[in-house]
Amino acid sequence: MSVQSVNRKSRFLAACAGQPVDTVPIWLMRQAGRYLPEYQATRRRAGDFLTLCTTPELAVEVTLQPVHRLGVDAAILFSDILLPLRAMGMPLTFTDEGPRLSPLDSAAAIDALRVLEPDALPEVLETVRLLRRELTDVVPLIGFAGAPFTLLTYAIEGQTGKSFVRSKRLLYAEPELAHRLLGKLTDSLIAHLTGQAKAGAQALQLFDSWVGVLSTEDYAVFGAPYVERVLSALRPLGVPLIYFPLGGLSLLPQVGKLSADVISVDWRQPLSLAQKLLSSQQGLQGNLEPLLLLGPLAQLEARVKRVLDDAPRRRYIFNLGHGLTPEIPPAHVEALVEMVHRLGQRPAHE
Amino acid sequence: MSVQSVNRKSRFLAACAGQPVDTVPIWLMRQAGRYLPEYQATRRRAGDFLTLCTTPELAVEVTLQPVHRLGVDAAILFSDILLPLRAMGMPLTFTDEGPRLSPLDSAAAIDALRVLEPDALPEVLETVRLLRRELTDVVPLIGFAGAPFTLLTYAIEGQTGKSFVRSKRLLYAEPELAHRLLGKLTDSLIAHLTGQAKAGAQALQLFDSWVGVLSTEDYAVFGAPYVERVLSALRPLGVPLIYFPLGGLSLLPQVGKLSADVISVDWRQPLSLAQKLLSSQQGLQGNLEPLLLLGPLAQLEARVKRVLDDAPRRRYIFNLGHGLTPEIPPAHVEALVEMVHRLGQRPAHE
Repeated sequence: MSVQSVNRKSRFLAACAGQPVDTVPIWLMRQAGRYLPEYQATRRRAGDFLTLCTTPELAVEVTLQPVHRLGVDAAILFSDILLPLRAMGMPLTFTDEGPRLSPLDSAAAIDALRVLEPDALPEVLETVRLLRRELTDVVPLIGFAGAPFTLLTYAIEGQTGKSFVRSKRLLYAEPELAHRLLGKLTDSLIAHLTGQAKAGAQALQLFDSWVGVLSTEDYAVFGAPYVERVLSALRPLGVPLIYFPLGGLSLLPQVGKLSADVISVDWRQPLSLAQKLLSSQQGLQGNLEPLLLLGPLAQLEARVKRVLDDAPRRRYIFNLGHGLTPEIPPAHVEALVEMVHRLGQRPAHE
Repeated sequence: MSVQSVNRKSRFLAACAGQPVDTVPIWLMRQAGRYLPEYQATRRRAGDFLTLCTTPELAVEVTLQPVHRLGVDAAILFSDILLPLRAMGMPLTFTDEGPRLSPLDSAAAIDALRVLEPDALPEVLETVRLLRRELTDVVPLIGFAGAPFTLLTYAIEGQTGKSFVRSKRLLYAEPELAHRLLGKLTDSLIAHLTGQAKAGAQALQLFDSWVGVLSTEDYAVFGAPYVERVLSALRPLGVPLIYFPLGGLSLLPQVGKLSADVISVDWRQPLSLAQKLLSSQQGLQGNLEPLLLLGPLAQLEARVKRVLDDAPRRRYIFNLGHGLTPEIPPAHVEALVEMVHRLGQRPAHE
């Protein structure tokens, strides 16, 4: 594929595959979200967050909003990493303080969890199918799930962890039970991500949002092996696999041995340093500090330029180092996309 | 000093100075705390946490409890990193959900803060004086404070940060104001730590508990220069200076350029890896995952042994990678101290 034929529709997947691109592709974690007034409007119509996630027409609507407004190079399915836990048998609600589940507190509770099949979560798969149709000739669609250890923390804490005491008690005091839970989560995630890809998702991202609380020694036992099981099982689907180990700088040497195509890097360290710890076969995604979007545009542009200068020439996707937050002005997000497309242009001979 | 003459009273300071020790010294972050029933009893007598911190007799009592029960090699002043903010003019309360301050929300509020003198916080200094008298011929006393950026987050968020949106908005949208606040915090911390040393603290630790939310680029501007100002100002006091950049693995190359004597390392990466990023002149403290204390003792001992094997031979102090939590059984903490003293013995010829 020559660089001339690469455009908005194809540059994200081209970059994932290490092919030449006309300019650096960009999408943004939590690009569909509360910072957008049109999202707020749909959210109000939905009534509650869970209804928004599980009503295909509404989930499609909020997925497409940033694609149209921002001109990003990929759409990401609007869903939630906790929906698979709900489908496995854990009642889920969303409060103003965050998600709430009845925490698993016994071997029996873990044994009672259902392992998902690829056709579980039909409303999410329907959203994917509708989106893929809407997005033909626009941009590719990314599906996603939480990584096994991250889902373990929610299942055990019953909410977003703080000290992760319950989760780590399981790892250290009942390791066999921890492995049994991780196994069931892994099998369910493989099924759900396979379902997403078969329904039309053209890339898959695994969010390991809480893996940063694990030491390197514990990641080697409770983290990496399960992530690799997911990645290996998804490999035959033929879609690019992206892994985001948030806060996991100390884990990058192990992440470099995983079979992910692209590693999403948080904002804490320069991309060039992260790359040294990873495999030369892995592409990078990231890693602007999202809250720079609260500051003036001239400063934002200077920092975007430094990220781009520091990024690899090939197999690179611009993103934030973490998700967009409600306080960020949409006009600054629009400006960011324009900056990346302008400053990221690659000469045709590259 | 020959290794034979080094004992519980002197091994912590000997290790800080890079001198030979009979065995590895140990103290534990939050060693005075809720996991101890005797602490709970004193806390109940105090009524509330702030009274406990600011009543010298009570603060002395809880400081000494773990020294007696555990046999650790250093005492650490019982106080709170937020007391200097209170003395600077920010009313402070402690709720079940954590500390609460009225967040600074204007230049005027920042300008109205008092800069502390060394005799500020007289109740804390009195605690130090009483402790030093009690601890003569027992173990050395460590004083402490929060680092400037960490205190900025509490002053701006009004509580323990979550997304740190307000703090980062200040850094990125009003950097001059951020520097003005950091300057006042730095001057106050220098004064308060000088006061502690003059009252009898024999080492000083700077807790940078939230610095891990900064990128390397922002730490170079808003973090490291202020930490170095504190360290340089304290240097003439002649006491060892310990710096704990929690979650700051990406910052270690910059931390290696700071004039701290000892760097306290969190549990995320092996000590030997941290050491490669630091200066060869700096000692290490750390870094056992504290929640391993929830698991069986045989597993704990295996992990303690691995930490000791990985630690430098000289200038090393055993500690946790983060503080003790209320769920941890005191008997396991006692066992940990015994293990470190037994397994950390250095042959006399070293």
